[in-house]
Amino acid sequence: LTAGAELDSFIPMRRAVNGFRQITIIGVGLLGGSIGLAVKARHPETLIVGVGRRRLSLSQALKRGAIDRAYLEDACPQAVASADLVVLATPVGAFERYLRAIRNHLKPGAIVTDVGSTKSDAMAAARRVLKAGHACFVGSHPMAGSERKGVVAADPDMLTGALCVITPGRAPRATARVEAFWRELGMRTVRMSPAAHDKAVARISHLPHLLSVALMCLPQRAELRLAAGGFRDMTRLAGGDPEMWRDILLSNRREIQAAMDEFSRRWSKLRRLVKRADGDAAQEYLRSAQRARLRNVTK
Amino acid sequence: LTAGAELDSFIPMRRAVNGFRQITIIGVGLLGGSIGLAVKARHPETLIVGVGRRRLSLSQALKRGAIDRAYLEDACPQAVASADLVVLATPVGAFERYLRAIRNHLKPGAIVTDVGSTKSDAMAAARRVLKAGHACFVGSHPMAGSERKGVVAADPDMLTGALCVITPGRAPRATARVEAFWRELGMRTVRMSPAAHDKAVARISHLPHLLSVALMCLPQRAELRLAAGGFRDMTRLAGGDPEMWRDILLSNRREIQAAMDEFSRRWSKLRRLVKRADGDAAQEYLRSAQRARLRNVTK
Repeated sequence: LTAGAELDSFIPMRRAVNGFRQITIIGVGLLGGSIGLAVKARHPETLIVGVGRRRLSLSQALKRGAIDRAYLEDACPQAVASADLVVLATPVGAFERYLRAIRNHLKPGAIVTDVGSTKSDAMAAARRVLKAGHACFVGSHPMAGSERKGVVAADPDMLTGALCVITPGRAPRATARVEAFWRELGMRTVRMSPAAHDKAVARISHLPHLLSVALMCLPQRAELRLAAGGFRDMTRLAGGDPEMWRDILLSNRREIQAAMDEFSRRWSKLRRLVKRADGDAAQEYLRSAQRARLRNVTK
Repeated sequence: LTAGAELDSFIPMRRAVNGFRQITIIGVGLLGGSIGLAVKARHPETLIVGVGRRRLSLSQALKRGAIDRAYLEDACPQAVASADLVVLATPVGAFERYLRAIRNHLKPGAIVTDVGSTKSDAMAAARRVLKAGHACFVGSHPMAGSERKGVVAADPDMLTGALCVITPGRAPRATARVEAFWRELGMRTVRMSPAAHDKAVARISHLPHLLSVALMCLPQRAELRLAAGGFRDMTRLAGGDPEMWRDILLSNRREIQAAMDEFSRRWSKLRRLVKRADGDAAQEYLRSAQRARLRNVTK
Protein backbone atom coordinates (compact mmCIF):
# COMPACT_ATOMS: atom_id res chain seq x y z
CA LEU A 1 0.00 0.00 0.00
CA THR A 2 1.58 3.28 -1.06
CA ALA A 3 1.00 6.56 0.68
CA GLY A 4 -0.76 7.82 -2.41
CA ALA A 5 -3.20 4.96 -2.44
CA GLU A 6 -3.89 5.41 1.24
CA LEU A 7 -4.58 9.08 0.69
CA ASP A 8 -6.98 8.27 -2.14
CA SER A 9 -9.03 6.11 0.14
CA PHE A 10 -9.76 9.10 2.34
CA ILE A 11 -11.00 11.21 -0.54
CA PRO A 12 -14.72 10.46 -0.91
CA MET A 13 -15.47 8.66 -4.19
CA ARG A 14 -16.59 11.05 -6.88
CA ARG A 15 -20.37 10.87 -6.60
CA ALA A 16 -22.15 9.06 -9.40
CA VAL A 17 -24.33 11.32 -11.53
CA ASN A 18 -26.81 12.77 -9.04
CA GLY A 19 -26.44 9.70 -6.90
CA PHE A 20 -27.54 7.38 -9.71
CA ARG A 21 -24.83 4.70 -9.58
CA GLN A 22 -26.58 2.48 -12.11
CA ILE A 23 -28.70 3.79 -14.94
CA THR A 24 -30.62 1.39 -17.15
CA ILE A 25 -31.57 2.73 -20.55
CA ILE A 26 -34.33 0.81 -22.31
CA GLY A 27 -33.92 1.40 -26.02
CA VAL A 28 -30.37 2.16 -27.11
CA GLY A 29 -31.11 4.16 -30.25
CA LEU A 30 -30.08 7.69 -31.14
CA LEU A 31 -31.35 9.32 -27.96
CA GLY A 32 -30.75 6.42 -25.55
CA GLY A 33 -27.23 6.03 -26.89
CA SER A 34 -26.54 9.76 -26.66
CA ILE A 35 -27.66 9.79 -23.03
CA GLY A 36 -25.33 6.87 -22.28
CA LEU A 37 -22.41 8.65 -23.94
CA ALA A 38 -23.18 11.94 -22.19
CA VAL A 39 -23.27 10.25 -18.76
CA LYS A 40 -20.07 8.29 -19.42
CA ALA A 41 -18.29 11.43 -20.59
CA ARG A 42 -18.99 13.08 -17.24
CA HIS A 43 -19.12 10.11 -14.88
CA PRO A 44 -17.24 7.13 -16.27
CA GLU A 45 -17.84 5.30 -12.98
CA THR A 46 -21.62 5.21 -13.49
CA LEU A 47 -22.76 1.78 -14.63
CA ILE A 48 -24.89 2.10 -17.75
CA VAL A 49 -27.02 -0.91 -18.61
CA GLY A 50 -28.71 -1.07 -22.00
CA VAL A 51 -31.80 -2.99 -23.04
CA GLY A 52 -32.52 -3.51 -26.73
CA ARG A 53 -34.55 -5.54 -29.16
CA ARG A 54 -31.69 -6.40 -31.48
CA ARG A 55 -28.27 -7.86 -30.79
CA LEU A 56 -26.76 -5.60 -33.42
CA SER A 57 -27.74 -2.33 -31.79
CA LEU A 58 -26.67 -3.61 -28.38
CA SER A 59 -23.25 -4.59 -29.67
CA GLN A 60 -22.91 -1.24 -31.43
CA ALA A 61 -23.84 0.50 -28.16
CA LEU A 62 -21.23 -1.53 -26.26
CA LYS A 63 -18.63 -0.82 -28.92
CA ARG A 64 -19.31 2.92 -28.83
CA GLY A 65 -19.08 2.90 -25.04
CA ALA A 66 -22.65 4.15 -24.62
CA ILE A 67 -23.43 1.21 -22.32
CA ASP A 68 -21.39 -1.09 -20.11
CA ARG A 69 -23.71 -4.09 -20.13
CA ALA A 70 -26.34 -5.25 -22.57
CA TYR A 71 -29.58 -7.19 -22.17
CA LEU A 72 -32.13 -8.29 -24.76
CA GLU A 73 -35.64 -7.08 -24.02
CA ASP A 74 -36.82 -10.37 -22.52
CA ALA A 75 -34.24 -9.90 -19.79
CA CYS A 76 -35.32 -6.40 -18.85
CA PRO A 77 -36.32 -7.46 -15.31
CA GLN A 78 -32.68 -8.40 -14.63
CA ALA A 79 -31.46 -5.27 -16.38
CA VAL A 80 -33.39 -2.96 -14.06
CA ALA A 81 -33.01 -4.92 -10.81
CA SER A 82 -30.09 -2.83 -9.52
CA ALA A 83 -30.91 0.39 -11.37
CA ASP A 84 -31.23 3.68 -9.50
CA LEU A 85 -32.66 5.33 -12.59
CA VAL A 86 -34.46 3.71 -15.53
CA VAL A 87 -34.79 5.73 -18.73
CA LEU A 88 -37.44 4.61 -21.24
CA ALA A 89 -36.00 5.56 -24.62
CA THR A 90 -38.16 3.43 -26.92
CA PRO A 91 -41.00 4.72 -29.11
CA VAL A 92 -43.85 6.01 -26.90
CA GLY A 93 -46.17 3.14 -27.88
CA ALA A 94 -43.95 0.61 -26.11
CA PHE A 95 -43.78 2.40 -22.75
CA GLU A 96 -46.69 0.63 -21.07
CA ARG A 97 -45.45 -2.82 -22.07
CA TYR A 98 -42.00 -2.12 -20.62
CA LEU A 99 -43.42 -0.56 -17.45
CA ARG A 100 -45.47 -3.72 -16.86
CA ALA A 101 -42.43 -5.89 -17.48
CA ILE A 102 -40.24 -4.08 -14.97
CA ARG A 103 -42.58 -2.80 -12.25
CA ASN A 104 -42.12 -5.73 -9.87
CA HIS A 105 -38.36 -5.87 -10.37
CA LEU A 106 -37.32 -2.32 -9.52
CA LYS A 107 -35.41 -1.78 -6.32
CA PRO A 108 -36.91 0.45 -3.60
CA GLY A 109 -36.32 4.11 -4.30
CA ALA A 110 -35.64 3.60 -7.98
CA ILE A 111 -36.88 6.36 -10.30
CA VAL A 112 -38.25 5.81 -13.79
CA THR A 113 -38.27 8.50 -16.44
CA ASP A 114 -38.66 8.56 -20.20
CA VAL A 115 -37.70 10.60 -23.26
CA GLY A 116 -41.09 10.48 -24.98
CA SER A 117 -42.18 13.28 -27.31
CA THR A 118 -45.72 13.17 -25.94
CA LYS A 119 -46.40 13.35 -22.25
CA SER A 120 -50.12 12.77 -21.51
CA ASP A 121 -49.95 9.17 -22.70
CA ALA A 122 -46.67 8.48 -20.93
CA MET A 123 -47.93 9.89 -17.63
CA ALA A 124 -51.22 7.99 -17.97
CA ALA A 125 -49.38 4.73 -18.67
CA ALA A 126 -47.19 5.28 -15.61
CA ARG A 127 -50.26 6.04 -13.45
CA ARG A 128 -51.98 2.87 -14.65
CA VAL A 129 -48.98 0.59 -14.23
CA LEU A 130 -46.92 1.88 -11.33
CA LYS A 131 -48.81 1.71 -8.04
CA ALA A 132 -47.80 2.78 -4.56
CA GLY A 133 -44.76 0.77 -3.60
CA HIS A 134 -43.47 0.74 -7.15
CA ALA A 135 -40.91 3.21 -8.38
CA CYS A 136 -41.67 6.90 -8.92
CA PHE A 137 -42.24 8.03 -12.47
CA VAL A 138 -41.20 11.47 -13.70
CA GLY A 139 -41.87 12.44 -17.31
CA SER A 140 -39.08 13.93 -19.42
CA HIS A 141 -38.92 15.19 -22.96
CA PRO A 142 -35.36 16.07 -23.90
CA MET A 143 -35.96 18.15 -27.03
CA ALA A 144 -32.92 17.11 -28.99
CA GLY A 145 -32.55 14.79 -31.90
CA SER A 146 -31.60 14.48 -35.50
CA GLU A 147 -33.01 12.84 -38.57
CA ARG A 148 -30.42 10.11 -38.18
CA LYS A 149 -31.22 6.89 -36.44
CA GLY A 150 -29.63 4.40 -34.13
CA VAL A 151 -26.80 4.34 -31.67
CA VAL A 152 -24.27 4.73 -34.51
CA ALA A 153 -25.48 8.35 -34.82
CA ALA A 154 -25.47 8.92 -31.04
CA ASP A 155 -23.58 11.99 -29.89
CA PRO A 156 -22.64 12.89 -26.30
CA ASP A 157 -23.12 16.58 -27.13
CA MET A 158 -26.57 16.23 -28.71
CA LEU A 159 -28.28 17.22 -25.46
CA THR A 160 -26.00 20.15 -24.65
CA GLY A 161 -27.85 23.43 -24.49
CA ALA A 162 -31.18 21.90 -25.58
CA LEU A 163 -34.37 22.13 -23.54
CA CYS A 164 -35.81 19.26 -21.51
CA VAL A 165 -39.45 19.51 -20.50
CA ILE A 166 -40.21 17.82 -17.18
CA THR A 167 -43.72 16.67 -16.33
CA PRO A 168 -43.54 16.21 -12.54
CA GLY A 169 -44.45 12.94 -10.88
CA ARG A 170 -46.11 12.42 -7.52
CA ALA A 171 -42.87 12.62 -5.54
CA PRO A 172 -41.31 16.10 -5.61
CA ARG A 173 -37.91 14.72 -4.67
CA ALA A 174 -37.85 12.33 -7.62
CA THR A 175 -38.86 15.19 -9.92
CA ALA A 176 -36.02 17.33 -8.60
CA ARG A 177 -33.51 14.51 -9.05
CA VAL A 178 -34.58 13.84 -12.64
CA GLU A 179 -34.40 17.56 -13.34
CA ALA A 180 -30.89 17.71 -11.89
CA PHE A 181 -29.93 14.68 -13.99
CA TRP A 182 -30.77 16.42 -17.29
CA ARG A 183 -29.13 19.63 -16.14
CA GLU A 184 -25.97 17.74 -15.33
CA LEU A 185 -26.00 16.52 -18.93
CA GLY A 186 -25.99 20.15 -20.07
CA MET A 187 -29.70 20.62 -20.73
CA ARG A 188 -31.97 23.47 -19.73
CA THR A 189 -35.14 22.27 -18.01
CA VAL A 190 -38.67 23.58 -17.70
CA ARG A 191 -41.66 22.07 -15.86
CA MET A 192 -45.00 21.81 -17.63
CA SER A 193 -48.23 19.88 -17.29
CA PRO A 194 -48.59 17.00 -19.75
CA ALA A 195 -51.53 18.73 -21.47
CA ALA A 196 -49.72 22.05 -21.93
CA HIS A 197 -46.65 20.22 -23.18
CA ASP A 198 -48.60 18.15 -25.69
CA LYS A 199 -50.44 21.14 -27.09
CA ALA A 200 -47.27 23.19 -27.48
CA VAL A 201 -45.21 20.42 -29.10
CA ALA A 202 -48.07 19.60 -31.48
CA ARG A 203 -47.70 23.13 -32.80
CA ILE A 204 -43.95 23.63 -32.53
CA SER A 205 -42.63 20.16 -33.32
CA HIS A 206 -45.23 17.69 -34.65
CA LEU A 207 -46.84 20.11 -37.10
CA PRO A 208 -43.47 21.08 -38.67
CA HIS A 209 -42.64 17.40 -38.96
CA LEU A 210 -45.83 16.66 -40.90
CA LEU A 211 -45.31 19.68 -43.15
CA SER A 212 -41.85 18.40 -43.92
CA VAL A 213 -43.24 14.94 -44.74
CA ALA A 214 -46.02 16.25 -46.99
CA LEU A 215 -43.59 18.57 -48.79
CA MET A 216 -41.08 15.78 -49.39
CA CYS A 217 -43.71 13.66 -51.13
CA LEU A 218 -44.72 16.39 -53.59
CA PRO A 219 -41.99 17.00 -56.19
CA GLN A 220 -41.14 14.51 -58.88
CA ARG A 221 -37.66 13.12 -59.02
CA ALA A 222 -36.63 15.25 -62.03
CA GLU A 223 -37.64 18.40 -60.15
CA LEU A 224 -35.52 17.44 -57.18
CA ARG A 225 -32.31 18.22 -59.02
CA LEU A 226 -33.31 21.89 -58.58
CA ALA A 227 -33.52 21.44 -54.82
CA ALA A 228 -31.25 23.89 -53.00
CA GLY A 229 -30.55 24.61 -49.35
CA GLY A 230 -34.11 25.74 -48.62
CA PHE A 231 -35.70 22.51 -49.75
CA ARG A 232 -33.02 20.54 -47.95
CA ASP A 233 -33.74 22.32 -44.66
CA MET A 234 -37.48 22.02 -45.10
CA THR A 235 -37.32 18.26 -45.66
CA ARG A 236 -34.71 17.30 -43.08
CA LEU A 237 -37.39 16.27 -40.59
CA ALA A 238 -39.01 14.02 -43.21
CA GLY A 239 -35.91 11.81 -42.96
CA GLY A 240 -36.89 10.93 -39.37
CA ASP A 241 -37.82 7.49 -38.10
CA PRO A 242 -41.31 6.48 -39.37
CA GLU A 243 -41.95 4.08 -36.48
CA MET A 244 -41.20 6.68 -33.83
CA TRP A 245 -43.37 9.24 -35.61
CA ARG A 246 -46.24 6.82 -36.06
CA ASP A 247 -46.37 6.49 -32.28
CA ILE A 248 -46.18 10.26 -31.79
CA LEU A 249 -49.04 10.85 -34.25
CA LEU A 250 -51.26 8.30 -32.56
CA SER A 251 -50.32 9.37 -29.07
CA ASN A 252 -50.85 13.12 -29.58
CA ARG A 253 -53.57 12.81 -32.18
CA ARG A 254 -56.07 15.31 -30.79
CA GLU A 255 -53.58 18.15 -30.39
CA ILE A 256 -51.95 17.39 -33.74
CA GLN A 257 -55.33 17.50 -35.46
CA ALA A 258 -56.04 20.88 -33.92
CA ALA A 259 -52.63 22.19 -35.00
CA MET A 260 -53.13 20.84 -38.55
CA ASP A 261 -56.54 22.49 -38.72
CA GLU A 262 -55.14 25.80 -37.60
CA PHE A 263 -52.36 25.52 -40.14
CA SER A 264 -54.91 24.76 -42.87
CA ARG A 265 -56.83 27.93 -42.04
CA ARG A 266 -53.67 30.04 -42.26
CA TRP A 267 -52.61 28.29 -45.44
CA SER A 268 -55.99 29.02 -47.05
CA LYS A 269 -55.57 32.68 -46.21
CA LEU A 270 -52.18 32.73 -47.89
CA ARG A 271 -53.61 30.92 -50.94
CA ARG A 272 -56.27 33.60 -51.25
CA LEU A 273 -53.65 36.36 -51.12
CA VAL A 274 -51.68 34.72 -53.90
CA LYS A 275 -54.83 34.07 -55.94
CA ARG A 276 -55.94 37.68 -55.62
CA ALA A 277 -52.38 38.80 -56.50
CA ASP A 278 -52.62 41.09 -53.50
CA GLY A 279 -48.99 42.18 -53.35
CA ASP A 280 -49.34 44.55 -50.41
CA ALA A 281 -51.17 42.05 -48.21
CA ALA A 282 -48.75 39.29 -49.21
CA GLN A 283 -45.78 41.48 -48.37
CA GLU A 284 -47.33 42.33 -45.00
CA TYR A 285 -47.82 38.60 -44.31
CA LEU A 286 -44.20 37.89 -45.31
CA ARG A 287 -43.00 40.78 -43.20
CA SER A 288 -44.80 39.61 -40.06
CA ALA A 289 -43.29 36.13 -40.49
CA GLN A 290 -39.85 37.65 -40.96
CA ARG A 291 -40.30 39.79 -37.85
CA ALA A 292 -41.43 36.83 -35.75
CA ARG A 293 -38.50 34.74 -37.01
CA LEU A 294 -35.90 37.41 -36.31
CA ARG A 295 -37.29 38.24 -32.88
CA ASN A 296 -38.14 34.85 -31.51
CA VAL A 297 -36.00 32.17 -33.12
CA THR A 298 -32.36 32.33 -32.27
CA LYS A 299 -29.68 30.48 -34.18
CA LEU B 1 12.09 49.83 -67.80
CA THR B 2 13.42 46.66 -66.21
CA ALA B 3 13.85 43.39 -68.04
CA GLY B 4 11.12 41.89 -65.96
CA ALA B 5 8.66 44.60 -66.89
CA GLU B 6 9.55 44.20 -70.54
CA LEU B 7 9.00 40.47 -70.31
CA ASP B 8 5.63 41.03 -68.65
CA SER B 9 4.48 43.11 -71.54
CA PHE B 10 4.93 40.14 -73.85
CA ILE B 11 2.88 37.81 -71.70
CA PRO B 12 -0.72 38.27 -72.72
CA MET B 13 -2.75 39.87 -69.92
CA ARG B 14 -4.58 37.31 -67.87
CA ARG B 15 -7.95 37.22 -69.60
CA ALA B 16 -10.80 38.84 -67.73
CA VAL B 17 -13.49 36.41 -66.62
CA ASN B 18 -14.71 34.88 -69.89
CA GLY B 19 -13.69 38.00 -71.74
CA PHE B 20 -15.89 40.23 -69.62
CA ARG B 21 -13.50 43.05 -68.70
CA GLN B 22 -16.20 45.15 -67.09
CA ILE B 23 -19.22 43.71 -65.33
CA THR B 24 -21.98 46.00 -64.09
CA ILE B 25 -24.14 44.60 -61.33
CA ILE B 26 -27.47 46.37 -60.86
CA GLY B 27 -28.52 45.75 -57.27
CA VAL B 28 -25.68 45.17 -54.83
CA GLY B 29 -27.51 43.09 -52.26
CA LEU B 30 -26.75 39.62 -50.97
CA LEU B 31 -26.57 37.95 -54.37
CA GLY B 32 -25.20 40.88 -56.38
CA GLY B 33 -22.54 41.43 -53.75
CA SER B 34 -21.63 37.75 -53.64
CA ILE B 35 -21.20 37.71 -57.43
CA GLY B 36 -18.91 40.73 -57.23
CA LEU B 37 -16.82 39.10 -54.51
CA ALA B 38 -16.65 35.79 -56.39
CA VAL B 39 -15.46 37.50 -59.57
CA LYS B 40 -12.89 39.61 -57.74
CA ALA B 41 -11.57 36.54 -55.91
CA ARG B 42 -10.79 34.88 -59.25
CA HIS B 43 -10.11 37.86 -61.50
CA PRO B 44 -9.07 40.92 -59.51
CA GLU B 45 -8.42 42.75 -62.80
CA THR B 46 -12.08 42.64 -63.83
CA LEU B 47 -13.75 46.00 -63.26
CA ILE B 48 -16.93 45.56 -61.24
CA VAL B 49 -19.37 48.46 -61.35
CA GLY B 50 -22.28 48.50 -58.91
CA VAL B 51 -25.61 50.27 -59.20
CA GLY B 52 -27.76 50.72 -56.14
CA ARG B 53 -30.69 52.62 -54.74
CA ARG B 54 -29.06 53.61 -51.50
CA ARG B 55 -25.72 55.26 -50.78
CA LEU B 56 -25.27 53.05 -47.73
CA SER B 57 -25.35 49.73 -49.58
CA LEU B 58 -23.08 51.10 -52.29
CA SER B 59 -20.53 52.24 -49.76
CA GLN B 60 -20.74 48.88 -47.96
CA ALA B 61 -20.20 47.13 -51.30
CA LEU B 62 -17.16 49.30 -52.03
CA LYS B 63 -15.81 48.70 -48.55
CA ARG B 64 -16.19 44.93 -48.86
CA GLY B 65 -14.48 44.99 -52.25
CA ALA B 66 -17.52 43.57 -54.03
CA ILE B 67 -17.47 46.48 -56.49
CA ASP B 68 -14.82 48.89 -57.73
CA ARG B 69 -17.11 51.79 -58.68
CA ALA B 70 -20.54 52.79 -57.50
CA TYR B 71 -23.44 54.59 -59.20
CA LEU B 72 -26.85 55.52 -57.84
CA GLU B 73 -29.72 54.16 -59.91
CA ASP B 74 -30.36 57.41 -61.79
CA ALA B 75 -26.89 57.09 -63.25
CA CYS B 76 -27.32 53.54 -64.50
CA PRO B 77 -26.89 54.59 -68.17
CA GLN B 78 -23.33 55.70 -67.36
CA ALA B 79 -22.77 52.61 -65.22
CA VAL B 80 -23.51 50.22 -68.08
CA ALA B 81 -21.97 52.22 -70.94
CA SER B 82 -18.67 50.29 -70.94
CA ALA B 83 -19.99 47.03 -69.52
CA ASP B 84 -19.37 43.74 -71.34
CA LEU B 85 -21.84 42.01 -69.03
CA VAL B 86 -24.73 43.51 -67.07
CA VAL B 87 -26.22 41.46 -64.24
CA LEU B 88 -29.68 42.43 -63.01
CA ALA B 89 -29.68 41.52 -59.33
CA THR B 90 -32.66 43.51 -58.10
CA PRO B 91 -36.08 42.07 -57.22
CA VAL B 92 -37.75 40.67 -60.37
CA GLY B 93 -40.40 43.40 -60.41
CA ALA B 94 -37.78 46.06 -61.17
CA PHE B 95 -36.20 44.30 -64.19
CA GLU B 96 -38.29 45.95 -66.89
CA ARG B 97 -37.70 49.42 -65.53
CA TYR B 98 -33.93 48.92 -65.49
CA LEU B 99 -33.90 47.34 -68.93
CA ARG B 100 -35.70 50.39 -70.34
CA ALA B 101 -33.28 52.70 -68.57
CA ILE B 102 -30.18 51.01 -69.99
CA ARG B 103 -31.17 49.64 -73.40
CA ASN B 104 -29.96 52.62 -75.44
CA HIS B 105 -26.73 52.94 -73.49
CA LEU B 106 -25.25 49.46 -73.80
CA LYS B 107 -22.21 49.02 -75.98
CA PRO B 108 -22.40 46.74 -79.03
CA GLY B 109 -21.94 43.10 -78.11
CA ALA B 110 -22.85 43.62 -74.46
CA ILE B 111 -24.75 40.80 -72.81
CA VAL B 112 -27.42 41.24 -70.15
CA THR B 113 -28.36 38.54 -67.70
CA ASP B 114 -30.21 38.42 -64.41
CA VAL B 115 -30.45 36.43 -61.20
CA GLY B 116 -34.24 36.34 -60.97
CA SER B 117 -36.04 33.49 -59.24
CA THR B 118 -38.74 33.44 -61.92
CA LYS B 119 -37.88 33.26 -65.58
CA SER B 120 -41.02 33.66 -67.73
CA ASP B 121 -41.51 37.27 -66.63
CA ALA B 122 -37.82 38.12 -66.93
CA MET B 123 -37.60 36.68 -70.45
CA ALA B 124 -40.83 38.41 -71.48
CA ALA B 125 -39.60 41.75 -70.13
CA ALA B 126 -36.36 41.34 -72.05
CA ARG B 127 -38.28 40.44 -75.25
CA ARG B 128 -40.46 43.52 -74.87
CA VAL B 129 -37.67 45.94 -74.09
CA LEU B 130 -34.56 44.77 -75.92
CA LYS B 131 -35.01 44.88 -79.68
CA ALA B 132 -32.62 43.91 -82.47
CA GLY B 133 -29.56 46.07 -82.16
CA HIS B 134 -29.81 46.13 -78.39
CA ALA B 135 -27.82 43.76 -76.21
CA CYS B 136 -28.55 40.02 -75.98
CA PHE B 137 -30.43 38.85 -72.93
CA VAL B 138 -29.82 35.45 -71.35
CA GLY B 139 -31.82 34.40 -68.30
CA SER B 140 -30.03 33.06 -65.24
CA HIS B 141 -31.23 31.78 -61.91
CA PRO B 142 -28.31 31.05 -59.60
CA MET B 143 -30.01 28.92 -56.96
CA ALA B 144 -28.06 30.09 -53.98
CA GLY B 145 -28.99 32.40 -51.19
CA SER B 146 -29.54 32.72 -47.51
CA GLU B 147 -32.15 34.27 -45.28
CA ARG B 148 -29.75 37.12 -44.63
CA LYS B 149 -29.94 40.30 -46.59
CA GLY B 150 -27.70 42.88 -48.10
CA VAL B 151 -24.12 43.13 -49.22
CA VAL B 152 -22.93 42.85 -45.62
CA ALA B 153 -23.97 39.17 -45.76
CA ALA B 154 -22.43 38.61 -49.21
CA ASP B 155 -20.11 35.64 -49.47
CA PRO B 156 -17.77 34.83 -52.38
CA ASP B 157 -18.38 31.10 -51.77
CA MET B 158 -22.17 31.28 -51.70
CA LEU B 159 -22.39 30.22 -55.34
CA THR B 160 -19.85 27.42 -55.15
CA GLY B 161 -21.34 24.04 -55.99
CA ALA B 162 -24.88 25.41 -56.33
CA LEU B 163 -26.98 25.05 -59.48
CA CYS B 164 -27.61 27.87 -61.94
CA VAL B 165 -30.54 27.45 -64.32
CA ILE B 166 -29.99 29.13 -67.69
CA THR B 167 -32.92 30.12 -69.89
CA PRO B 168 -31.26 30.62 -73.29
CA GLY B 169 -31.60 33.84 -75.21
CA ARG B 170 -31.81 34.33 -78.96
CA ALA B 171 -28.04 34.28 -79.48
CA PRO B 172 -26.46 30.88 -78.77
CA ARG B 173 -23.03 32.43 -78.29
CA ALA B 174 -24.28 34.80 -75.58
CA THR B 175 -25.98 31.88 -73.84
CA ALA B 176 -22.75 29.90 -73.89
CA ARG B 177 -20.77 32.82 -72.50
CA VAL B 178 -23.21 33.39 -69.65
CA GLU B 179 -23.14 29.68 -68.91
CA ALA B 180 -19.34 29.73 -68.82
CA PHE B 181 -19.46 32.78 -66.55
CA TRP B 182 -21.46 30.98 -63.84
CA ARG B 183 -19.34 27.85 -64.21
CA GLU B 184 -16.22 29.89 -63.71
CA LEU B 185 -17.74 31.10 -60.42
CA GLY B 186 -18.02 27.45 -59.34
CA MET B 187 -21.66 26.81 -60.20
CA ARG B 188 -23.19 23.84 -61.99
CA THR B 189 -25.46 24.91 -64.85
CA VAL B 190 -28.52 23.45 -66.54
CA ARG B 191 -30.58 24.84 -69.42
CA MET B 192 -34.36 24.92 -69.14
CA SER B 193 -37.29 26.68 -70.78
CA PRO B 194 -38.73 29.53 -68.69
CA ALA B 195 -42.03 27.64 -68.28
CA ALA B 196 -40.39 24.41 -67.09
CA HIS B 197 -38.17 26.39 -64.72
CA ASP B 198 -41.05 28.33 -63.24
CA LYS B 199 -43.16 25.24 -62.65
CA ALA B 200 -40.31 23.36 -61.01
CA VAL B 201 -39.20 26.21 -58.73
CA ALA B 202 -42.81 26.87 -57.71
CA ARG B 203 -42.82 23.34 -56.31
CA ILE B 204 -39.26 23.02 -55.04
CA SER B 205 -38.53 26.55 -53.84
CA HIS B 206 -41.55 28.88 -53.67
CA LEU B 207 -43.89 26.37 -52.03
CA PRO B 208 -41.37 25.54 -49.26
CA HIS B 209 -40.91 29.26 -48.69
CA LEU B 210 -44.64 29.82 -48.20
CA LEU B 211 -44.91 26.81 -45.89
CA SER B 212 -42.11 28.25 -43.81
CA VAL B 213 -43.86 31.63 -43.66
CA ALA B 214 -47.24 30.17 -42.68
CA LEU B 215 -45.62 27.96 -40.05
CA MET B 216 -43.69 30.85 -38.53
CA CYS B 217 -46.91 32.81 -37.99
CA LEU B 218 -48.68 30.02 -36.10
CA PRO B 219 -47.17 29.51 -32.63
CA GLN B 220 -47.60 31.99 -29.85
CA ARG B 221 -44.53 33.55 -28.35
CA ALA B 222 -44.69 31.44 -25.16
CA GLU B 223 -44.71 28.28 -27.26
CA LEU B 224 -41.64 29.37 -29.15
CA ARG B 225 -39.38 28.71 -26.19
CA LEU B 226 -39.96 25.01 -26.94
CA ALA B 227 -38.66 25.48 -30.48
CA ALA B 228 -35.76 23.16 -31.23
CA GLY B 229 -33.62 22.52 -34.29
CA GLY B 230 -36.52 21.22 -36.37
CA PHE B 231 -38.59 24.37 -35.98
CA ARG B 232 -35.51 26.48 -36.59
CA ASP B 233 -34.78 24.70 -39.87
CA MET B 234 -38.41 24.82 -40.96
CA THR B 235 -38.66 28.57 -40.43
CA ARG B 236 -35.27 29.67 -41.76
CA LEU B 237 -36.79 30.61 -45.12
CA ALA B 238 -39.42 32.75 -43.39
CA GLY B 239 -36.59 35.10 -42.41
CA GLY B 240 -36.11 35.97 -46.11
CA ASP B 241 -36.60 39.38 -47.68
CA PRO B 242 -40.35 40.22 -47.91
CA GLU B 243 -39.91 42.59 -50.84
CA MET B 244 -38.06 40.06 -52.96
CA TRP B 245 -40.62 37.39 -52.15
CA ARG B 246 -43.54 39.66 -52.91
CA ASP B 247 -42.17 40.03 -56.43
CA ILE B 248 -41.63 36.28 -56.76
CA LEU B 249 -45.20 35.54 -55.63
CA LEU B 250 -46.68 38.01 -58.11
CA SER B 251 -44.39 36.99 -60.93
CA ASN B 252 -44.91 33.22 -60.63
CA ARG B 253 -48.44 33.39 -59.32
CA ARG B 254 -50.06 30.78 -61.57
CA GLU B 255 -47.50 28.07 -60.91
CA ILE B 256 -47.36 28.88 -57.20
CA GLN B 257 -51.14 28.61 -56.95
CA ALA B 258 -51.01 25.20 -58.62
CA ALA B 259 -48.27 24.04 -56.26
CA MET B 260 -50.19 25.35 -53.21
CA ASP B 261 -53.31 23.55 -54.42
CA GLU B 262 -51.44 20.30 -54.83
CA PHE B 263 -49.92 20.68 -51.40
CA SER B 264 -53.36 21.31 -49.93
CA ARG B 265 -54.66 18.06 -51.42
CA ARG B 266 -51.76 16.10 -49.93
CA TRP B 267 -52.13 17.86 -46.62
CA SER B 268 -55.82 16.96 -46.48
CA LYS B 269 -54.94 13.33 -47.05
CA LEU B 270 -52.50 13.42 -44.15
CA ARG B 271 -55.10 15.13 -41.94
CA ARG B 272 -57.55 12.33 -42.71
CA LEU B 273 -54.96 9.69 -41.76
CA VAL B 274 -54.34 11.39 -38.42
CA LYS B 275 -58.05 11.89 -37.81
CA ARG B 276 -58.80 8.22 -38.53
CA ALA B 277 -55.82 7.25 -36.29
CA ASP B 278 -54.74 4.98 -39.13
CA GLY B 279 -51.30 4.07 -37.80
CA ASP B 280 -50.33 1.72 -40.62
CA ALA B 281 -51.26 4.14 -43.39
CA ALA B 282 -49.57 7.01 -41.53
CA GLN B 283 -46.41 4.96 -41.08
CA GLU B 284 -46.42 4.08 -44.79
CA TYR B 285 -46.78 7.78 -45.64
CA LEU B 286 -43.91 8.65 -43.29
CA ARG B 287 -41.83 5.83 -44.73
CA SER B 288 -42.28 6.96 -48.34
CA ALA B 289 -41.24 10.49 -47.37
CA GLN B 290 -38.20 9.13 -45.56
CA ARG B 291 -37.26 7.01 -48.57
CA ALA B 292 -37.61 9.95 -50.97
CA ARG B 293 -35.51 12.13 -48.68
CA LEU B 294 -32.72 9.62 -48.25
CA ARG B 295 -32.60 8.73 -51.95
CA ASN B 296 -33.00 12.11 -53.57
CA VAL B 297 -31.82 14.86 -51.26
CA THR B 298 -28.13 14.90 -50.60
CA LYS B 299 -26.53 16.89 -47.84
